[in-house]
Amino acid sequence: MTRELHLNAFLMEAGHHEAAWRLPESIPGAGIDVQHYIALAQIAEAAKFDSIFFADGSVAQGTGEFRVPGQIEPLTLLTAVAGATSRIGLIATASTTYNDPYGLARRFASVDHASNGRAGWNIVTSATSEEAVNFSLEERPLQATRYERADEFLQVALKLWDSWGDDHFVGDKAGARWGDPSRLRRIDHRGKHFQVAGPLNVPRPVQGYPLLVQAGASEQGKAFAARYAEAIFVAHQTLEQGQAFYADMKARAAAEGRDPAHVLVLPGIVPIIGSTEAEATAKARELDDLRIPEYGLRQLATILEVDEGDLELDAPLPRAVVEQTRREGFDSRSRLVIDLAEREGLTVRQLLGRLGGGRGHNVVIGTPEQVADTIEAWFTQGAADGFNVMGAALPSGLVTFVETVVPLLRERGLFRSEYAGTTLREHYGLPRPANQFEAEGAQVVQPA
Amino acid sequence: MTRELHLNAFLMEAGHHEAAWRLPESIPGAGIDVQHYIALAQIAEAAKFDSIFFADGSVAQGTGEFRVPGQIEPLTLLTAVAGATSRIGLIATASTTYNDPYGLARRFASVDHASNGRAGWNIVTSATSEEAVNFSLEERPLQATRYERADEFLQVALKLWDSWGDDHFVGDKAGARWGDPSRLRRIDHRGKHFQVAGPLNVPRPVQGYPLLVQAGASEQGKAFAARYAEAIFVAHQTLEQGQAFYADMKARAAAEGRDPAHVLVLPGIVPIIGSTEAEATAKARELDDLRIPEYGLRQLATILEVDEGDLELDAPLPRAVVEQTRREGFDSRSRLVIDLAEREGLTVRQLLGRLGGGRGHNVVIGTPEQVADTIEAWFTQGAADGFNVMGAALPSGLVTFVETVVPLLRERGLFRSEYAGTTLREHYGLPRPANQFEAEGAQVVQPA
Ligand SMILES: Cc1cc2nc3c(=O)[nH]c(=O)nc-3n(C[C@H](O)[C@H](O)[C@H](O)COP(=O)(O)O)c2cc1C
Ligand SMILES: Cc1cc2nc3c(=O)[nH]c(=O)nc-3n(C[C@H](O)[C@H](O)[C@H](O)COP(=O)(O)O)c2cc1C
Repeated sequence: MTRELHLNAFLMEAGHHEAAWRLPESIPGAGIDVQHYIALAQIAEAAKFDSIFFADGSVAQGTGEFRVPGQIEPLTLLTAVAGATSRIGLIATASTTYNDPYGLARRFASVDHASNGRAGWNIVTSATSEEAVNFSLEERPLQATRYERADEFLQVALKLWDSWGDDHFVGDKAGARWGDPSRLRRIDHRGKHFQVAGPLNVPRPVQGYPLLVQAGASEQGKAFAARYAEAIFVAHQTLEQGQAFYADMKARAAAEGRDPAHVLVLPGIVPIIGSTEAEATAKARELDDLRIPEYGLRQLATILEVDEGDLELDAPLPRAVVEQTRREGFDSRSRLVIDLAEREGLTVRQLLGRLGGGRGHNVVIGTPEQVADTIEAWFTQGAADGFNVMGAALPSGLVTFVETVVPLLRERGLFRSEYAGTTLREHYGLPRPANQFEAEGAQVVQPA
Repeated sequence: MTRELHLNAFLMEAGHHEAAWRLPESIPGAGIDVQHYIALAQIAEAAKFDSIFFADGSVAQGTGEFRVPGQIEPLTLLTAVAGATSRIGLIATASTTYNDPYGLARRFASVDHASNGRAGWNIVTSATSEEAVNFSLEERPLQATRYERADEFLQVALKLWDSWGDDHFVGDKAGARWGDPSRLRRIDHRGKHFQVAGPLNVPRPVQGYPLLVQAGASEQGKAFAARYAEAIFVAHQTLEQGQAFYADMKARAAAEGRDPAHVLVLPGIVPIIGSTEAEATAKARELDDLRIPEYGLRQLATILEVDEGDLELDAPLPRAVVEQTRREGFDSRSRLVIDLAEREGLTVRQLLGRLGGGRGHNVVIGTPEQVADTIEAWFTQGAADGFNVMGAALPSGLVTFVETVVPLLRERGLFRSEYAGTTLREHYGLPRPANQFEAEGAQVVQPA
C-alpha cells in the first residue's frame, strides 16, 4: 500500500490569524457558535479530511477586548459535530492535570460511541499558572509532576477502556442474560496519583481506545508522545526542523517498541492562498493590517511570562527574557517563539507579525501549486505524515484550501477521494488496539 | 395566569422496570444507544413535555449479567439530543463530589449554548462508596462533608456563570473591539473546598444559569434544595406523603427568602396503562414475570449495604438492617425503601416486587382516566407541580402515556398544547436570574 497523506482541520474561531474576526466576511462571535463549527466540519468532511481538531485551555484568554476569551467546551463541540457529520474524525483537547481519569475516560468513550468510532483525544498537561488558579492551586505543578501524572493518567484510562470486553454484550432475553459478567473487570489501579477500582460505566470504545494525540514539544512532551501518541501535532518553520523532529520521533517510538508507522507526525500549516503570488501576499497583508499591536504584545508577554513593559517594539527581545525561557521546565511553546526570534534576528514588532498569523506555525503564502509543493516536499522528504491545516480565516481559509489545493494533492496521488474506512483510526491507517485483559496470557481480574 | 402542570420524561435504558429489556419489543442495548434516547426525546418534544432527564452515577452497576451496567455520559447524551430537537428542556445529573466547579460550570454553560438555553443540572452528591473508590478515595465522604462541598460548589458555579456580563459582546470590527473588558470579571473565590480565580472561559449561559434541579430527600438534601433547587425530583408512594413533602419544601424555600412558586416539586410516576384496569394489571404482571429475583436481591442488598445472605426472601427485613439505615448520614434512598417495607408490612419478596417496577416511585396501574385522575389529584391537592414520568418500558411506556393520558390532561386544561417559550426556564415558568455582579449596587471586581 502506498503511504497516504493525512489532513486534519484545526478549527479555531473566525480563523487562526488573531485579527481574522475583523474581516468583512467573518462572524465575530464564531468561537462560541456551534453552527459555525458544524459548517466547518461539514466542509472538511466533504473534502475527505481525516479529522477536525479543537484546541483548549481551562482559562479565559486575555481581557476579551480584542478577541474571544473563551470557547464552547470541546467535547461538547465534538458531540454536536458528531450528530451533523458521519465520517470525519473528531479530536478534542483535554488536560490530564485538571481532569480525573474515571470521568474523562468515560467522556471520551461516550463521544466515541456517539460518533460510531470517530473520537480522538489531544492529551495536554496544561502548562500555565493561569489555568492552575482555576483549580484550587497557587501555581502550575512542575513540568515533571505534570508528565508523571499524565503517564499514570493514561495507564488508568487504557485499563478503564479495557475493563469491558469487546463481546461482553449477550442480550439473551429468553435466558435473562444481558451480558457476560466474566468480561466486565475491576482494574484495581493503585498508583502514586490515582487509586481507581473500575470497571468503567460505559462499554469499551468502538475504536478500542480513542485516537491518542499529543502536541508537547519539550523533552518530557516528546518522551510522553513516544510512549502513547498515535498522532503528533507540532509547529515548525523550516523543512530541516521538520525532518529532524520527524526522525527523532520515529526513532523514539521504535525505542519504545512501537511501530514508527503508527506514530504520525502532523506539522501545522497556515496556507494563505492566491491565484498569483501577488494576490496571496495582498491577502496576507490585508490580515496583518487588521492586527491590534496591543493585543499581540500582551499575548507575547503572557507566553514569555514577562511584563508588557519589558518588551520594546523596535528592539530585539531582551537577553534576560531569552535566558529565562531556556530554564528547565519552561513551556516549550515559549522556546519556539524565542528560537524563531533568534534565528531570524527579529525585533519584537517583526516577531509579533510572524506570530499573529500562525502562532509559530508555518505560514505558507502563495499559489495553490506552491502550497501543494510545500506539502508534497515535507511529506516525501521525511518531515510529515500529513498536515494540521490551520485556516488563517475561517471558513474562507479552509474553503480555498479544499477547492484549490486538495484537487492538486489528489492529482499527485497523495490524498484520498473517498473514505476507505468508517472510524478515525481507519482514516489514519492505525490498528484497533487489543484489549490488554483479553490478550493471550493476560491476567484476568474478576469483579468482586 | 393559571397554574400549569409540568411534565418531565425520565429516560432510562429500555425502561424503568428492571426487566423491561426482556420484553419482545425492547432494544436490550438501549442504555448505550444514542439513537434510542434521541427517538425518546423527540416523542416527548412532540408531546410538548417540559424536559427530558438522565440520571447518573460514576460506577458500573452490578456485574452486567442481568442489566446494562453503564450509560453514555449524560452531558454527551444531552448534546446529542440537543442537535436532534429544538424546544424540549435537557436535564442531566452531575456530581459535586466527583467534579470540579470550573470544569463542570463550563460544561453546563456549553450545553446551554449548544441548545439555545435548554440545559438543566440535576445536582447530586453521590452517596455510595462504590463511586468513591473510582476517585482515589477509600470510601464515600461523610454526608455533611458532601453537602458542604456541594454548597460551596454551587456558589462557585453561580459566580463563574456570572463572570461574563450578558452584554459583554461588542463585535466592533472597525473599532477593533471584540468585547467590553469591564464585563469580564475575576471571581477570586477563596473557600474551604475551592479556590477559583475565574473568569470562566465561556460566556454566561443563555438562561443565565442552567435550570438547577435536585433529588436528595435527606434532611441535608432538603436544606440544599431549599437554597438552590428550582425543580425537585422525589419519590413518594402516597398522596399524603406527597402533600407533606410539598408543603415542607415550599415553606423551606420561603424561609430562605425565595418565591415558593419558583421551587417546583415533581414526584415520580410509573404509569402502567391499559384500556381497562384488567389490561393494565396484565401488563404489569407480564413485566413482573420477567424479573430476575437474583438481580433484585443483589440490588436491594447494595442499596441497604448488607450481604445478600442477610436477606431472606419470605421473611420481613431483619431488624438490624432496618436500624442500620436509620443511622445518621445514611443514604435517604435506603430509608425510602425501609419505610415502604415497614409501612406495608412487606416480606423481602414482596418488597422486591414493589421496587423492581419503579425503585420506590409511585407505580400507577390503570386506565388513562385513572392515571390522569391521580395526576390531577396530586396537582390540585398540594402534592405536585408536575410529574417525573418514568416509562416502565421505553419507548412503549412513554408513547402510551403521550397518546392516551396527555390528551386527557389537555382536555382538563392542565397541560399545554404548544410551547410558549423557547428555554427550559420558560417552560417551567421560571425567571432568568440576574447577574450577581451587575445587579444594582453590586461590587465589581476588575480583571487584573
Ligand atoms: C498544534 C498544537 C496544538 C496545541 N494545542 C494545545 C491545546 O489545545 N491546549 C494546550 O494546553 N496546549 C496545546 N498545545 C501545546 C502543547 O500541548 C504543549 O503543552 C506545549 O507545547 C508545551 O509543551 P510541554 O508541555 O511539552 O512543555 C498545542 C501545541 C501545538 C503544536
Ligand atoms: C427521581 C430521582 C432521581 C435521582 N437521580 C439520581 C442520580 O441520577 N444520581 C444520584 O447519584 N442520585 C440520584 N438520586 C438520589 C438523590 O439525588 C440522592 O442522592 C439520594 O436520594 C440520597 O439523598 P441524600 O443525598 O440527600 O442522602 C435520585 C433521586 C430521585 C428521587
